[in-house]
Order: sequence, then C-alpha cells, then structure tokens
Amino acid sequence: MQSQIKKSSSTQLALNKHPDMDTIVVALGGNAILKPGENGTFAEQMENIRSTAAQLAGLISGGKRLIITHGNGPQVGRIFQQQELGLRAGLPEMPLYICGAMSQAQIGIMIQQALHNELVLADCPRTIVTLVCQTLVDPQSEAFSSPTKPIGSFYSEAEAQKAMAEKGETWIEDSGRGWRRVVPSPEPLGFPEIEAIKSLLAQEIVVVVSGGGGTPVARSSRGTLVGVDAVVEKDLVAQAVAQMTGAGTLLILTDVAGAKINYRTPGEELIGRVSLKEIKEYHRQGHFIPGSMGPKVLAAIRFVESGGNMAVITSLENALPGAEGKVGTVVVR
Amino acid sequence: MQSQIKKSSSTQLALNKHPDMDTIVVALGGNAILKPGENGTFAEQMENIRSTAAQLAGLISGGKRLIITHGNGPQVGRIFQQQELGLRAGLPEMPLYICGAMSQAQIGIMIQQALHNELVLADCPRTIVTLVCQTLVDPQSEAFSSPTKPIGSFYSEAEAQKAMAEKGETWIEDSGRGWRRVVPSPEPLGFPEIEAIKSLLAQEIVVVVSGGGGTPVARSSRGTLVGVDAVVEKDLVAQAVAQMTGAGTLLILTDVAGAKINYRTPGEELIGRVSLKEIKEYHRQGHFIPGSMGPKVLAAIRFVESGGNMAVITSLENALPGAEGKVGTVVVR
Repeated sequence: MQSQIKKSSSTQLALNKHPDMDTIVVALGGNAILKPGENGTFAEQMENIRSTAAQLAGLISGGKRLIITHGNGPQVGRIFQQQELGLRAGLPEMPLYICGAMSQAQIGIMIQQALHNELVLADCPRTIVTLVCQTLVDPQSEAFSSPTKPIGSFYSEAEAQKAMAEKGETWIEDSGRGWRRVVPSPEPLGFPEIEAIKSLLAQEIVVVVSGGGGTPVARSSRGTLVGVDAVVEKDLVAQAVAQMTGAGTLLILTDVAGAKINYRTPGEELIGRVSLKEIKEYHRQGHFIPGSMGPKVLAAIRFVESGGNMAVITSLENALPGAEGKVGTVVVR
Repeated sequence: MQSQIKKSSSTQLALNKHPDMDTIVVALGGNAILKPGENGTFAEQMENIRSTAAQLAGLISGGKRLIITHGNGPQVGRIFQQQELGLRAGLPEMPLYICGAMSQAQIGIMIQQALHNELVLADCPRTIVTLVCQTLVDPQSEAFSSPTKPIGSFYSEAEAQKAMAEKGETWIEDSGRGWRRVVPSPEPLGFPEIEAIKSLLAQEIVVVVSGGGGTPVARSSRGTLVGVDAVVEKDLVAQAVAQMTGAGTLLILTDVAGAKINYRTPGEELIGRVSLKEIKEYHRQGHFIPGSMGPKVLAAIRFVESGGNMAVITSLENALPGAEGKVGTVVVR
C-alpha cells in the first residue's frame, strides 16, 4: 500500500486534450434552486430542485455522465445573517469560507436526493454524492487588492466603519441602500479534491461539486492550505472543473435563452451557434454584463479555448436540447 | 456507457467476509473537535482538529487506509439555534436533517484541510474529501414511536406545548432545566452513497463521511428517498460503514482510556483485550451508560460479530497504539 502513494495534481489547469463527448459539467444558476420573488422556504427550494433534477435525470438516462456545480448566493447570505444574529446572542461565528462549505452541503444534499429520486423513477438508478470542495486561489493576485464581491446584508456607515477598523474588512456604500462588506473574487487555480472527482466520474457516479464556486483556499510555500474569505465566480469554477476532468461539454443553465448582443437596446439579438473568434470579439466589445452574463461567456470562451468541444449557455428548461448544442448560445471552435 | 448502469447496493448490511487489515474506520468523538468548557470558536475547533489530524496522519503515513466519521452535537445544536434566531427575524428555516448535512460540511472541511496539511508536512500527501452522506432508516421502526434524542436548546413549557400542537413535534421536560425537543434515534440500515465511499477508498483517497451519523432518510415503496428528522447514533453508523466497506478495524476515539466495568463504583476496572463473548456479557449486565459508552461498546460488538477483525475503544491521544490493538478496550473474536 505504501508504494501506491498518490500525489494530487491539483494546481495545474492543463489543456483538455481528449475531451470526453459523453461527460458534461453542468453549472446551475440560482434560478435552478430559488426563483426571484420567492422567500426561499425549504419547500420552495426543494420543489425547484426537483424540477431541475428532472432535467438532469433526462441527460443521465440519455447516456451522459454529469458533474454538477451550482450557485449559492441567497443560501450563504442567509447562513451569514443567521450567524450575525447568533453572534449578538453570544454564539461564536464561523468565517465566510466555512459558511460557504455549509451551503455546499445544504444545497448539495437537496440535489443529491432529488436527482436520486428522479433517476429511480426513470428506472436508471445511480449513486449521487456531494463533495465538499475547495478552490485554490492566489492571495497575491490583483483581486485581493480590490475586493468587489458584496456579501451579507446592508448596515449603517457606523457599523461598517467599526468592522473595517476592528476586523480589517473592506466595506462599500452600495447605491444609497447602505453599507455592505465586499470580498475578493479571485481566479480559480485548481482543486485539492480533483482526483476524487475524476475517480467517481470514472465509476459512473454523479457528483455535485464546488457549490458557490467552492471554498477558497490559499497554498503556503510548504504546501499547506488555509481558508480565505473570498468568493470565486461559480461559472469560472465550473469551467476549470470541466477542463481538468476532460469533459466534452460545459452546459451553463440560467434563466434566459442565451447570451445577447446589444442587450436592452433596439438591436438586441440572441447569439446562437458562434465561433470562439466571434464571441471573443463580442466579449471584447463589452456586450455582456459583468457579474451576470459576462462570467458565463468568459467561462464558455475559456472552455473551448482550452480544448473543450462545446460550451452552451441556455435556460434550465432547455437542458436536453442544450446539451446537444441545438438551442441557446453554443460556442464552438 | 448505457450498458454500464450501476445499481447502488445500499440497503443490505451483509457480513464482512474479507476484512482488509489495512483499512480502518475511525469514529471521532466530540472531544476531537470541541473540548468540554470551550466556547467553540472557530480558532478553538480548528486547533483541536489540527491535533486530531496529527494522530490520523500518523495512521496514514504508517500505511493505513482511513474512513473518518465524527460527532456533530454542539455544531448542529448551534446551527439550530442560529436558525431559530433567524426565524424570529423572518428568515425561513431548514429541517433538522438539512442542518445535519450543513454540519457535515462545517466539520468535514476543517478535518479535510487539517489532515491535508499534516500529511503534506509528513511528506505523505493524499487527496482527502468530505462526502455529504445520508443514512437509511425505517420510519416504521420502534424508535419512531418513542423519540428519545434531545436536540436544540431549552424552552418554556408554553413554547413546547405550542410546537407540539402546531408542528406535531415531541418535547419533554428535562430534569428541571426546561423543555427540549426530542427526535427518534433509529438504527442505520444502509447508505445511498456507499459505492462512492468504496470507490474512493480503493483509490487511496481518504474520506470523511456520515458526520453526526449522517442525514437520515427513509425509502418509499417506489425507491425514492425522503429526509427524516431523527439522529442516528454516530458510533453505530461508523460500525455499519466499517462493515459495508470491508474494513478490518473499527477505531472509536473518545476522551477516556476505554470501556470500564463497575464504572464509578469501588470495583471500577478498565477493560483491556476482551473476547466478543465476554464483552457481550458485560453489555447485557448493564455496565455501560446508554448514549455514552453504551453505543460505543454495542458498535464494537456488532463490528466483530459481523466479521470485522478488531474493534478498539480508546482515547484520541492513543490512536496509533490503539489501531494496533495495544491499548484501550480491544474487542476480538
């Protein structure tokens, strides 16, 4: 056994040289779990996830291997608010990155259970499991010198000033609605758990990974890991996971039909099948909103550029034809 | 690929016919994470876990494969309290079993990170991952007709009566300290994720599984799963995982040197190496406290009875000699 020591090859985003056409990394947008206007009760989230799982089950029973990633914004925000209330009542709080891990399990177990059930009903049983995943980031990178990602609720200026002075946090005034803490949004550089993901995928086990972009960690010069309060963009994480697992398709499911040029202008137009060169040009021209369609398009570009076969951005209801590249924005080489 | 559909063999606790002498299931007691008297800050928990991880790293660098399980009492209790505070502020709450899943990630990621670091420093790197695990239970079993496991904080009789009337929960008066909710503590019957655990183990990947006894689920007649508010005894879950993965050793680490006969009487005596027959007799005679040493001894008995090689109950500091059966209460056939 000692001869079999395996080192994890977690830090390199190598080219995706032999993409597997039957493996899809699915990035679920927030609407797959909690729809705008909902209060986010357990029953509401479970029903949304059941309907999402029916789509995913269709892909699996159609012969695809899936790795599933998802957003966690409202859920981690709520854990954070509950912690803040607890702190005032004397209950110690956990750092943001531990709250992120908790949200991975909270959402993951719902997906795990709902997808299990849809597959059982489709007579196509699979083992499905949620992995609590970390995402390597570089604390020396530019993202850390100018935090941009708002988290938690709004506070008064006095409270914000106190947190900045006492904890060294960064807070910004958000368009008249109050002050919010902001954290860095660094690039994903690798995944300490990548070998586990690959190993389960090879056994036809469906994995839910890196929810909310995964729990950010930095690696010391000695190789040890330490948690970092940051939020890695989930679509970029889905792309990096897809690249490192040799997936053929990156399927980004959201609440709109695809990416658009001239969005919200008279010349607005849905982008259908598009070459890498063409969409890179649209991206350069600034057609896509940062923090919204922007990172999805960037993830699609990076995936195809690194060797992936096809990246698709489409709506949740279109998961099946989307995975075939028949609808939505379909980026190819 | 469609020809390779794998069914999960999750419901049967078959005999452990060929136990692997190099595979150990470690059940970590609460003191491995949070020590009595501590407030349970993140720094305190992380330091305890680091010291626990150093013990576990010694086992791994000594050539053992590990599956790690752990308790979650104080952590899930706190999540529950934070949720209760949130509920009063209008934030929807999650059921107990989802809170349990969240605690699996909260504790799991700390173990995952700390163990990674100890192994890197020992020049014996491994991939380590936390799996969010469910535990199958039978809602028709006797445990559900008489809930016994207290959860959450103490409340007034009026509040308890309200919860009983409105939510159909069971609450009991706890020795003058107030009223607490109690939930069933059913037997573990299987694990929907067992194939994932086995598959990772075979790849020398260290897995943290079934924290706090796992998230209890019931299986419908159609085979679908549904979450259940209950708490499965973590030592019995560790035993069942050990049995189903073909582990040779079940190592239960706690805060005392081992099990004792005539506990807290003048005839008190530590049990050392003991036969199955002998410890079953002690167990029948009622030497072990229910909910404390009782389930640990029961888990040890069941493990050896089902084919396991050796079950050891000892203190956390004695993990290394314990795994060799050199200290603590060592149950053999």
